[in-house]
This record gives sequence, C-alpha cells and structure tokens, in this order.
Amino acid sequence: MPIPQIRFHDRAPKVQQIVDAFTQAIETGELAAGSKLPSVRELGEQLGVGKFTLNEALDRLRGRHLLTSSQGRGHFVANRLAQPSSSTWVDLLPQDLLSVLRRPLAIAPGGLRPGGGHLPEDWLDSDALRQAMRSAVRAPSLRVASLGTPAGLLPLRQALQQKLQGEGLSVPVEQIITTPNTLQGLDMLMRLLARPGDTVLLDAPCYFNFHANLALHGVKVVTIARRPDGFDFAALEQLLAEQRPSLYLTTGVLHNPTGHSFSPGQAFRLLQLTRQYGCHIVEDDLYGDLHPNPPPRLAALAGLEQVTYLSGFSKILSANVRVSYVVAAPQLAANLTNMKLMSGGITSELFEQIVYRLLSEGSYARHRKRMVQRLLEAGGRVEQWLRRCGCELPMGFEGGMFIWARLPAGVNGERLAEAGLKRGMVLAPGALFGYEGGMRDFMRFNVGHCDDFRVWEGVEGLLSTYPLLR
Amino acid sequence: MPIPQIRFHDRAPKVQQIVDAFTQAIETGELAAGSKLPSVRELGEQLGVGKFTLNEALDRLRGRHLLTSSQGRGHFVANRLAQPSSSTWVDLLPQDLLSVLRRPLAIAPGGLRPGGGHLPEDWLDSDALRQAMRSAVRAPSLRVASLGTPAGLLPLRQALQQKLQGEGLSVPVEQIITTPNTLQGLDMLMRLLARPGDTVLLDAPCYFNFHANLALHGVKVVTIARRPDGFDFAALEQLLAEQRPSLYLTTGVLHNPTGHSFSPGQAFRLLQLTRQYGCHIVEDDLYGDLHPNPPPRLAALAGLEQVTYLSGFSKILSANVRVSYVVAAPQLAANLTNMKLMSGGITSELFEQIVYRLLSEGSYARHRKRMVQRLLEAGGRVEQWLRRCGCELPMGFEGGMFIWARLPAGVNGERLAEAGLKRGMVLAPGALFGYEGGMRDFMRFNVGHCDDFRVWEGVEGLLSTYPLLR
Repeated sequence: MPIPQIRFHDRAPKVQQIVDAFTQAIETGELAAGSKLPSVRELGEQLGVGKFTLNEALDRLRGRHLLTSSQGRGHFVANRLAQPSSSTWVDLLPQDLLSVLRRPLAIAPGGLRPGGGHLPEDWLDSDALRQAMRSAVRAPSLRVASLGTPAGLLPLRQALQQKLQGEGLSVPVEQIITTPNTLQGLDMLMRLLARPGDTVLLDAPCYFNFHANLALHGVKVVTIARRPDGFDFAALEQLLAEQRPSLYLTTGVLHNPTGHSFSPGQAFRLLQLTRQYGCHIVEDDLYGDLHPNPPPRLAALAGLEQVTYLSGFSKILSANVRVSYVVAAPQLAANLTNMKLMSGGITSELFEQIVYRLLSEGSYARHRKRMVQRLLEAGGRVEQWLRRCGCELPMGFEGGMFIWARLPAGVNGERLAEAGLKRGMVLAPGALFGYEGGMRDFMRFNVGHCDDFRVWEGVEGLLSTYPLLR
Repeated sequence: MPIPQIRFHDRAPKVQQIVDAFTQAIETGELAAGSKLPSVRELGEQLGVGKFTLNEALDRLRGRHLLTSSQGRGHFVANRLAQPSSSTWVDLLPQDLLSVLRRPLAIAPGGLRPGGGHLPEDWLDSDALRQAMRSAVRAPSLRVASLGTPAGLLPLRQALQQKLQGEGLSVPVEQIITTPNTLQGLDMLMRLLARPGDTVLLDAPCYFNFHANLALHGVKVVTIARRPDGFDFAALEQLLAEQRPSLYLTTGVLHNPTGHSFSPGQAFRLLQLTRQYGCHIVEDDLYGDLHPNPPPRLAALAGLEQVTYLSGFSKILSANVRVSYVVAAPQLAANLTNMKLMSGGITSELFEQIVYRLLSEGSYARHRKRMVQRLLEAGGRVEQWLRRCGCELPMGFEGGMFIWARLPAGVNGERLAEAGLKRGMVLAPGALFGYEGGMRDFMRFNVGHCDDFRVWEGVEGLLSTYPLLR
C-alpha cells in the first residue's frame, strides 16, 4: 500500500511529523480503514527512520485510535466504527429533504400553517380528548407495570373490527394489529414485505415520508402519475409489466397531497391490473374518515390477500395520540405482532385505552361528522380563493383536508415557501411530494388552516411580490 | 423450460386438463414464479393441442392469477407476492423463542411472576404516576394537534442532561435524543450503526430481545461469556482480533439477566481492548438506577465517540410510560433524529411531559431511592432462599432486580418453567438468555416478585417433584 511520503524538516521532532502525516492520510481516507501497514522494518526503510522513532510514532497513532495492532499480525488502519459512522441510508436522501421534513414540526404552533399536515388545533375536540385521557388514567384497569398486549388491547381491536365492518371490511379481530403510529406501522410492514432490491410503486405526487421510509429498506422506487381519472392505465400496465413492482403503496381515499379518491371503477381497474402482475397493495387510509361519502376502500374491494390496510387516528383525533392499526392477512398479521416485539413497536396501552373510550362512547363518530362538514364548508371557500389567486385545481375538491393547486404560471413553489417561512408562514411546496425534482409548480393547501383571512393576505402578498422574490 | 407432460384422457375437457396440470405444477413450484412459458405456438406443439384450446386454458390460468401476460412478451408464472409472503428474518428465529417472548406478556398480571422482567405492580408509585399524567393532560402547554419535537421535548432533555451530569456524563443537550422505548432506540441505532454482514458482539447470557432485534439487521452475532470477573480477557482479545466485531452491545451496570456490574477495573480493560480493535460499544443502561452505588457507566468513562448510551424509564416508573433516550456523538445524534422522522420513531409528547414532571419535581429520585432499598432487602431474603433450594449464585447479589441462579444438579430450566406455567407461574429459564442452546441449567429470578411466600412454596413444590416432571 502507498504510505504517506514525508519530507522531514527540522521544525518538529521526526516522531511528530510521522504522526501528523499519518493522521492526515487516515483522516482524508488516503489510507483506507482496515488496510494493513507494511511491516515495521519495511516502513522504517520507506520512511528512512529508525526503529525507535517509528515505534514511538506508531504508539502515538494507536493512542489516537487511528491504528490498531494485533499480536503477530501487524498494524491496521483503525475501523472508524469506533467513532460511529453512519450506514448507507443517510446518503440516499438529499439533506434538504430531511430538513424540510423537520421544518413544519419545529415551527411554533402559533404561526400560520397553510401547508400544515394536521387540522387546526382549535378544531379538535380537546375536551373529549382530555376527558378520555383522564378516564384512562383514573381507570383501575390501567396496568402501569406492564407493557401493552402484543397484538394490541383487545377491546380496542373489537371496536375497530366494528368500525371496519361498517366500511365493508369484515375481518376477524386476530387480523387487526395496533401500531404506535401509521408511519411505524408502514415501516414494520415494509420490513416484512419488501426485500432490498425489490421494486416498489408509489404515486406521483405522494406523501414525502413514503419516499423517506422506503429509502431505509433499500428498495427501488418507481412512480406513476396520480390523475383525476386515476391513472393513464395503459402506462400503469406497461410499468407493471416492465418494472415488476412487488408492492404498490398508495392511498385510496383522499390521497395526500392531491385529495384524489379512486372511484369504484378506477379502483377496480387498478386492482385487476396489480393482481394480474402479482403486485401487492399497501393501502394507507389515514384520511378516509374525512370524506363526506367515502368510496369503498381497496382492501374492502379486493380482500386482504391482495391489499394490506393501514389506518390511524393522528389526523382526526390528535397527532399526540399514538394509535394506528394494520389489517392484514392472517400470517402477515402474526408476523407483524412478532415484529412489534422484536423492534420495540408495541403500542402504549394508555393510548389504546384513550382511543377505545372515544370510539366506544361515540365521541369519535360525532367529532368525525363535524370535521367532515367543517372541511366541506371551509374547502368551498378556500377553493374559490385559490382560483381567484390564479391557481388551477386539477383534482378539484371533494372534501378532506387538502387541496392540490397548480400555482400561477412562472411561480416556483419552493421559492414561495422559502419566502413564506421568512414571514412565519409554513407552506407545503409540491417538490416535497414530488420525486427527482418534479411538482415544482404545485402546492398543497390545508383547507382548515387556509380558511383564515391572515393566510389569504399572507399568500396573496407573497404572490404579488413574487417577481421581486427571485 | 420443462412444461408439464399431460396424458390427456376423455373424462374431462382438454382445457380443464391443461388448467389442472399447470395449476399443480405452479403450486408445487415445479414451474417457478417469474419464469417465462414457451410461445403459444411452441406450447401448442409440445402439448399437442390446438390454438383455441390452449388460449382458453391460458385465459383461465390468468383468471386464477397463476399466470400473467404482457403484450408482446408472452406468458409468465405469476409472482406470488400478490399474496404477501414474509421476508427473510422470519426464518432466523426459532418459532418457540418468539412464543416465549410473547408468553410473559400474555399472562394475566395477577399470576405469580418469579421470572418477570418488571417490578411488581404494587411497588410502583402509581399515585405519583397518575398525578403526573393528570397534570400533563390538564396542562395548557400540551399541544394535542402536533407531534412531539423530533429530538424530544426540550425541558425533558434538559432534565436528563442534569441527571446524566450527576452520573459523570457531561453532554450538550443536542446529543440527548428521546425514543419511544429502549428497544426501539436500539433498533434505530442498529439501523444507523450496523450493516448486514457486520459482526456484533453480545454477552452470554444476555437479554433475549438483543438477539431477536439483531436478527432483523442481518448481522452475524458472536458472544463472550459474562463472568463475575468480567470476562476471560485473553479470550475477549482473541475474539476481537479474529472476529473483528464492529459493535459490542452490552449492559455495564446490573446486567440482565446476571445482575453483574463491571467494576471500574473491568470496565477499563474492556474499553481499552475494544478501542484497540475499533469496536464501538452500545451501552444499554436500563437498570443502572436500581444499583445502590452504581460504578461509572462505560459512556462516562470513555466518552461518546467510543460508547453510545441508551437508557429509559420502563423498569423504574412504568412499562406503560414510553420514554427512553439515547446519548450519542453529535453526528449520530443528528442521524438518529432523522431516523425517528423516517421510521415513525417520534416519542409522544404526552409521555415526555409526564416523565419531565416526575424528574423535575423530585418524585423520580424519591421513588428510585425507595426501590433501591426495597430491592436490597428483598434480594437478601431471596438470595438465602435460593441457596436453601440448592441453587448456586455465581454472580452473588449486589442490588437490582435480578438474581442469576444455577439450578440444583440435573434440573433443566425449560422443563421447570413449563411445569410452572401449568400452575400459573411465569419463570424465566436460562435458555431464554442463552444462545444456540446454552444456559439450560440456569434461571433468572426477579427479586421483587420472589420475595413472596407463594413463590417459595410454588418453586419448592416444582423442585421437589422435579424427577416426576420428566
């Protein structure tokens, strides 16, 4: 191996010069971790230094943990894992995406959040929620010493079973498994269903954390454009035939960010094609309960052998109440329970008790009904406002939390969002939901947060000064 | 490819006979998933049937989702992922280990649990806990609409910083990251630090979920015997030199299941050797606060470049309060925060508020002190009882929750545990903590649960009838 060439000078001891040169070579990677140095004799000859000088330098390099030595096997450049390095996924994501992921969370909740991903705080039924929390805390049945049940609290799963029944999905309670939140449910499902190198199909655009999470699993991502008519089905078939994705991760009802829901006819064609090409569907149904008249879920249409279903309460009850659930075929449900045990994915029984109370006492249903109506009304106003601003709404608005808008010609969503942040306003530029740089002229608007004169003023101000923002 | 040979008979239509033969060949794997069939012309010739018969049979096989076809590319045996199959990790663990993992959780908390992994329910300070829960729920600062802060609630992390300072670990608050529980913290750390194929060192015996979790990461596990004198350090050095583990996952203080704590001298030798061979340490410190006079943690001795530290409150406060934390070098701490966002590992702010209250109001410190004393007293009695039963205690008892006992000669721990379960008593046989079948003559006893005459009676009864149990 090439060792550092040192031109010795006399401003420092030779030992020091050797240590410095090797330190630099190791830190820059010129000397690769794990590589073996020549023997002490050879090294001394190559550097032109004596054995004592060299041994002292090697001692110091070992002291700095840059070299390791092993009796009779010589010296090695230290494996830098002694200083933890990061594994491969870190490089898979552009750092700015990561910071964008963090940004909306880091901003104080008082600011304007036209791009937010949740209902406004004051829309939520905090009283019912706090009441349920208090009852759960008081209840003698809350075992403080024990973990939750691996599959999830049984009464809650029975309440979910009843809810799913009402949505046309009849399923034994054994196939309903709680997870601490929906993203973690997805993460555990991906660990069970995806192998590194598999191809996974996503919508374009889609929820940014789908891309972020899939990056952790080493799969190849392909995308298909989500359109008002579902897809270009010929393009979908070609993609299924050529790329052979093993999984399609999607949202059937009130898709984030477009707000699109598959009509029964679109869902049927989709299910036929994916079935034909052996592509399993993971259906994330986080928003379906906000639809005024939800079309059938993919899982209810095609069954759990073809579609694994995932939902939760973070969007309707509170992001702070961490209970989601997966509905899956029997073997997958059993494997998911094991995965919960192996990866620390057990749901807190306290939260399970809270959600159980809200479901069984009817306050969830009442709150949901109010939210659906309020979103419809606010959405109508926001839709009109966005059109007045010069936006196009290719998906229209049929309810739910989001409107997907094409910005007026020439306006770049990221630039707008950047200018918004400077004024304390969190926007959700299309690039967040695109892939490989797409969707830059789009933006997702949160209906609840945008039904607010201050948001209108703020966004209109940004748009009017847009040419000056560049 | 070899297609099924069909000897046509006249008891069924030819189409049916073709469909049946191909169905069988595909279901038995004789025709492999993904493989391409010969062209329709060739297939017709090989089977000796006409085009119309063959096309009808192919149509029906597609209808059964056994074949797929693609315009111009011919017919393929369907990829069976349309019915979700499981990924590789499922086979890595013996199914009985998984059921053992579940078992203690599934048993009603009323039963006797001499092998339990938590303090008895009635030892916990339920009043303080419920009080903190009530305050957290009432507090106007609890934002129900928002997720927690990615790195964790700042006031809690500041309280943790102060606690760590008292344990000799001074660290900026940016390097303290909360996780929903300790196992999930470990799982996220392993995703960041371990690459498939890496070698990871574990103690023998050790907490069973370490093995279970590492199986998810595709690493190779090697073990070193944990002994009263730490290790056979020569064997440790040989193992480090030959196997080059990149990580060592261990518990420095009150190790589970042995109760052993590294003396400062043992810790120093361990840290020197692992440093020399570039092996990073992940220190799980879930029990350290139960030690009457804890020796220095590995992280406090060697710093966070060499040791990543992990702790939590499930063992002292409540398994239902899901807040743990990782203390790591700056880059790893930042990566862990991103991993929390990408994998759904954000901690609930409600729980963070609860733990913050308990820490800052002093009730955690008071409760901890009581638990330490109570365990010491109970442990003394349990130690004597175990010796009277003929057990050997190679590690002795210096405090904490567990005593590791060698069973009387000839007694197999699993057989004893099996007999115990039939009588409603949960024991923790050594095999749970061993690896590849080791530790069968050991058992872990929970000091809190064993200071109970009913347990003594029950275990002594099992031991006295042991020869009859076989």
